[in-house]
Amino acid sequence: MTAPVPALRDGLRQEVLEANLAIPRAGLAALTWGNVSGIDREAGLFVIKPSGVPYDSLTLEDLVTVRLSDGEIVHGRLRPSTDTETHRSLYRAFPSVGGVTHTHSTHAVAFAQARREIPVLGTTHADTFNGPVPCTPDLTPQQCATDYEYNTGQAIVDLLNSDDTRAAEVPGALVAGHGPFTWGPTARKSLEHAVICEAVADIALHTFALAPTSPPPPQHLLDRHYTRKHGPDAYYGNPDPGRTTPV
Amino acid sequence: MTAPVPALRDGLRQEVLEANLAIPRAGLAALTWGNVSGIDREAGLFVIKPSGVPYDSLTLEDLVTVRLSDGEIVHGRLRPSTDTETHRSLYRAFPSVGGVTHTHSTHAVAFAQARREIPVLGTTHADTFNGPVPCTPDLTPQQCATDYEYNTGQAIVDLLNSDDTRAAEVPGALVAGHGPFTWGPTARKSLEHAVICEAVADIALHTFALAPTSPPPPQHLLDRHYTRKHGPDAYYGNPDPGRTTPV
Amino acid sequence: MTAPVPALRDGLRQEVLEANLAIPRAGLAALTWGNVSGIDREAGLFVIKPSGVPYDSLTLEDLVTVRLSDGEIVHGRLRPSTDTETHRSLYRAFPSVGGVTHTHSTHAVAFAQARREIPVLGTTHADTFNGPVPCTPDLTPQQCATDYEYNTGQAIVDLLNSDDTRAAEVPGALVAGHGPFTWGPTARKSLEHAVICEAVADIALHTFALAPTSPPPPQHLLDRHYTRKHGPDAYYGNPDPGRTTPV
Amino acid sequence: MTAPVPALRDGLRQEVLEANLAIPRAGLAALTWGNVSGIDREAGLFVIKPSGVPYDSLTLEDLVTVRLSDGEIVHGRLRPSTDTETHRSLYRAFPSVGGVTHTHSTHAVAFAQARREIPVLGTTHADTFNGPVPCTPDLTPQQCATDYEYNTGQAIVDLLNSDDTRAAEVPGALVAGHGPFTWGPTARKSLEHAVICEAVADIALHTFALAPTSPPPPQHLLDRHYTRKHGPDAYYGNPDPGRTTPV
Repeated sequence: MTAPVPALRDGLRQEVLEANLAIPRAGLAALTWGNVSGIDREAGLFVIKPSGVPYDSLTLEDLVTVRLSDGEIVHGRLRPSTDTETHRSLYRAFPSVGGVTHTHSTHAVAFAQARREIPVLGTTHADTFNGPVPCTPDLTPQQCATDYEYNTGQAIVDLLNSDDTRAAEVPGALVAGHGPFTWGPTARKSLEHAVICEAVADIALHTFALAPTSPPPPQHLLDRHYTRKHGPDAYYGNPDPGRTTPV
Repeated sequence: MTAPVPALRDGLRQEVLEANLAIPRAGLAALTWGNVSGIDREAGLFVIKPSGVPYDSLTLEDLVTVRLSDGEIVHGRLRPSTDTETHRSLYRAFPSVGGVTHTHSTHAVAFAQARREIPVLGTTHADTFNGPVPCTPDLTPQQCATDYEYNTGQAIVDLLNSDDTRAAEVPGALVAGHGPFTWGPTARKSLEHAVICEAVADIALHTFALAPTSPPPPQHLLDRHYTRKHGPDAYYGNPDPGRTTPV
Repeated sequence: MTAPVPALRDGLRQEVLEANLAIPRAGLAALTWGNVSGIDREAGLFVIKPSGVPYDSLTLEDLVTVRLSDGEIVHGRLRPSTDTETHRSLYRAFPSVGGVTHTHSTHAVAFAQARREIPVLGTTHADTFNGPVPCTPDLTPQQCATDYEYNTGQAIVDLLNSDDTRAAEVPGALVAGHGPFTWGPTARKSLEHAVICEAVADIALHTFALAPTSPPPPQHLLDRHYTRKHGPDAYYGNPDPGRTTPV
Repeated sequence: MTAPVPALRDGLRQEVLEANLAIPRAGLAALTWGNVSGIDREAGLFVIKPSGVPYDSLTLEDLVTVRLSDGEIVHGRLRPSTDTETHRSLYRAFPSVGGVTHTHSTHAVAFAQARREIPVLGTTHADTFNGPVPCTPDLTPQQCATDYEYNTGQAIVDLLNSDDTRAAEVPGALVAGHGPFTWGPTARKSLEHAVICEAVADIALHTFALAPTSPPPPQHLLDRHYTRKHGPDAYYGNPDPGRTTPV
């Protein structure tokens, strides 16, 4: 039963480390809160932050490698993030997901606590999320009793109807009473989506104060912004693999 | 009457210094506001920040050692924090308390000024505080006239019915019209609880704006979060005594 | 048809680089959002940030030079900002404009999302903007379908009735559902106006909370402030060309 | 008529420089906004920031020395702050004032724009200001037409009924539609009061959101806090002239 553990693709652990270190730098969580993981689909393994380790002493050696199929730890001397099973649930449901980020960022958590989706109120949102950032229903007593963390991911999967295309187009969701999970093709992209999720939640709160009943922007504007960054006609950005987006 | 002063346990003064220095770094107070103390129960002494000394010139030598039983200064050339007697009152009432932090953090002070408890609105709160962060009644003229600072602590003690278990489960309270006091098994933990108290107050204010009449999250979710970090079935974190949580 | 490309005036590229680097430092945009350009009117060329390049690796060599008359790239190995045509539209309409800045700053974007102008509520605003910062109508499907970015600039030009004097006196506008564009006689000044636009939007939101129906300040106060910094009787500041205003 | 200019007391220029540099560090103003001055009563001269000079290149040599009696510049190669006459007006009216600070800090300016005093809502306020931070009426056309800046100071003086004791007990005021001026026995203290004025305005806004109609704290609590820091029975702080309070 103990097959040899496949090697991880080069650079994955470094990318996961750097994305985790960006969480406190971007002000997305205090203390040891938050976590980022990244997956090697070929190896069937993902790498994640250990539980409760302070960011400023976090090293490559602290990261934990987990098997996608069964959640077993295959490498690492520390316990992985308590949210590991939530990440695993998202990886299993959505083949397009290469990285997952969880934070306790102030404004996104407020939407989660209010059990409200973050609506599309402008191009800052539409540049990245092709629709509202949805919010799950409250988890049931059964969902909390056993496999709580896996069920948390499953609540997101159910919210998106297990639709991988939808997950790719709206790369984030709020867990009711808890907070945001975001994802993307890479760990770094999932972290960028966490930054954007918090920014649009913050701006949305101010927009509500200024215009409580304002209609949303016209769909043709939102579509234009989403498609200039995504899909076959995208014209945003520059191909430059050596440049990473700092947060 | 002058018994020899017992030696403090190793590392206590350094921990208290570092926890104090974290107050301005975490944005919990301006100027010289705020203070952290830590106790050596065996020696019957606690160590606290001096009054009105700027954080950026604070050194180990500036810390003041105070006797738990009578509040006498047994070491230090400076006057201790004016809030020293509040700390002493909490130490005397709650044997489980090993450290106390007082700040003037913006959102927690707003709740104290509004004389409202910080309700449990999500898992960010339930991860640490097993219930609302309560707020004392206004202090009476008598409580303000003499032993004001000791009475301030006593108002918190009364609020918790002198219940040490409750103090351990809800490690913080607001003093009406004044601000937050938090505590924990160590000075560092009391400081972390001050960070969390401010974070949940900030998020709560935004949650109120989004959902003024929203019901609280289901108790089974809150319980799950509290117990995954506390008590015999806790599975959060990693034992690693060499790592301290930075703020 | 291929006339030789004129040389840019000394210092323009350096000024544009520094103004771009000030965007994240001043907290006006996350990730790679935002862009600043500066124009050399004599050469008929402007210099702008490339698209999607992280600020912390942005160098002089990355900047892109664009021809004012037709939007052709005349220098640079990278694709220019997707907002380049918006900048070009503003440069073409307003001869007094020497620099343009676009950001996604939180409070100014909230006004744009609420489709509200930023009214003149005090001298902080009147010191720089001689009137409200206006907001365009929603762009039409036609405006979004082709030449979207150029049309975005044109929506601002129309809002100001193509009036160059008005553009000089109110050096900024909000694009509905999108965010702020500011300009000025130089790239650096356009960036300073972006800082001020965000500051007055932030203060205005708090002012609304405190005094929802308060009348504006008296016009004689606003005029006094605008004219002490602008026009023939200005007496603010010191002539000192070697000093640049840091952000 | 040209009497020799008296020498300034040692350390005054350094103190004024450092207090000015603390303005951007404490987040009290953007760009070149804000100014601090300090006076040498014996020499009849005060030292103030020059107009429009960026903080990060501000040096001792840039500071301008102004004569209290007539506002003449007696030293310095640059133009002084446009607000110099406001400072002079305050120095002339209030003999206890040794330093003056003006900022455009976000929340205090919002109160000024709303033409509302900052009420005493808790001990953070009462520790420093023995009463609300009052707000002037709008300046009249006549006050704005000539000697505008001197009249701005005079509006504050009138607000306090030229009462030096009141100025010492409530060391700050808001100018309607403009922003806060604070003062104190020294330039550094005036800057600290600007920090506190902004902090209490920020907390007050959140307190209003939480408790729009809450009664103020009991006067015996506020008095206790004011008197533990001020007057003959004060017991806050430590005498340590070598320590300066950083901001």
